[in-house]
Amino acid sequence: MAILVPISFLLRFFFLLSLLSFSVSDSDSPSAHQHRVFPRPLIVEYTDMTEEVREQCGAWRVAGEANNLGPWRTVPEECAEYVKEYMTGRGYVVDLEMVSKEAREYVKSVELGSDGKDAWIFDIDETLLSNLPYYAAHGYGLEVFDHEKFNDWVEKGVAPAIEPSLKLYENVLNMGFKVILLTGRSERHRSVTVDNLINAGFKEWDQLILRTSDDQGKRAVLFKSEKRSEMESDGYRILGNSGDQWSDLLGSSVSVRSFKLPNPMYYIP
Amino acid sequence: MAILVPISFLLRFFFLLSLLSFSVSDSDSPSAHQHRVFPRPLIVEYTDMTEEVREQCGAWRVAGEANNLGPWRTVPEECAEYVKEYMTGRGYVVDLEMVSKEAREYVKSVELGSDGKDAWIFDIDETLLSNLPYYAAHGYGLEVFDHEKFNDWVEKGVAPAIEPSLKLYENVLNMGFKVILLTGRSERHRSVTVDNLINAGFKEWDQLILRTSDDQGKRAVLFKSEKRSEMESDGYRILGNSGDQWSDLLGSSVSVRSFKLPNPMYYIP
Repeated sequence: MAILVPISFLLRFFFLLSLLSFSVSDSDSPSAHQHRVFPRPLIVEYTDMTEEVREQCGAWRVAGEANNLGPWRTVPEECAEYVKEYMTGRGYVVDLEMVSKEAREYVKSVELGSDGKDAWIFDIDETLLSNLPYYAAHGYGLEVFDHEKFNDWVEKGVAPAIEPSLKLYENVLNMGFKVILLTGRSERHRSVTVDNLINAGFKEWDQLILRTSDDQGKRAVLFKSEKRSEMESDGYRILGNSGDQWSDLLGSSVSVRSFKLPNPMYYIP
Repeated sequence: MAILVPISFLLRFFFLLSLLSFSVSDSDSPSAHQHRVFPRPLIVEYTDMTEEVREQCGAWRVAGEANNLGPWRTVPEECAEYVKEYMTGRGYVVDLEMVSKEAREYVKSVELGSDGKDAWIFDIDETLLSNLPYYAAHGYGLEVFDHEKFNDWVEKGVAPAIEPSLKLYENVLNMGFKVILLTGRSERHRSVTVDNLINAGFKEWDQLILRTSDDQGKRAVLFKSEKRSEMESDGYRILGNSGDQWSDLLGSSVSVRSFKLPNPMYYIP
């Protein structure tokens, strides 16, 4: 037990060191990792989380990404710290970039028809626009979803772009796809959503489909399947679909390839 | 730069500490984590892998679990060490247990009919039986798949059970499901597969479906969809499906719930 005194000192030291290395590695610059203060970042785990919590919550998060979880209302309490760390640290960004990269590789491989009917569908929230500022103020998914408060946030129209998705979006547009935005947001938020998207750098979409009063109360997976089916009736070939919820991607009239963006903060059935 | 001398000392100290904490946390005992030598395991990352490799390969693995990757033939070279560590360390086991737990929670929630037609489908390789001893000798997916060598391994009939899957299997049987085994293995391996399954603790399945000569050369996703469609024609209701490949789970006649077991070692289209 004599070892405990140096450990508390070392903790403080390594905590400072980790902050330093974190502030470097958090940069958007792709070369950031080549200019570390120390040759190898040996310590990044500086929070109070035990290894078991990290393992369990990591497995929970991956199970969600693989669509293995049943419906859930809030992040499990024991994973609150883990999810916060994931969302605000490197984990979320690296995952977003990986999905964007894979989607762009697929885009490169596709041969488009000449009739302008090849379509790529994008969901909006946590796919093109990030509500992280809202969720940061509401426990990163630990609090039960509050429609009213969330609508107040949506109406501000200030959600930032998810940069790796913007990169994919521009790539998809440049390749000649028709972009269709398909969102669970309500029709009454059309104008604030359009303004928010444009301010965040998104442009030239073909259609923006929101929930009308007829669609209220429908499960997302049904609403989105119906809309995809209408696109097919209109002659579109749905070659790509990007969404952060499995209910964006599954159901009927599914896309040739679907891309599931990470989201451990909430679940929409 | 005066700080570099103490760091090299601290590194060595923490390396030893990490070995100690790892040897404890690696135990199978569920209570192992409650008897750590030190109150908090601060360091678990003791290999030569840089944090960037760990991040990138972690994102690659999760992208695979979320079906975001295009077809791949081998594990990316830079992720060889990461995949080995994942497969042989806690990561794989914890993920397997999470999927099994989620599936068992679903099993509990299902009301079965009285006609004995509620079915659960299990894939075999990396779902019920583990080929980890084979892959350990072949780079954990770093080597291109060698049918001949793999068949030699299959013919030994010594693949161990994946324990969390055996637990689910028994649970599913006890609840009254009909168990259908649907595997890409060839019909000529029927007898060795049956022996292997029984020795590993699996029993009382309703059907074991292997590839006949007619099915050779068919993509797994088509072969398995056809077989599921036949099950439906035979009156089965497919309520659960467990597999380590998305081609076990997607296509047509998909199950009410599907459970994707982790597998970063190989990809079957």
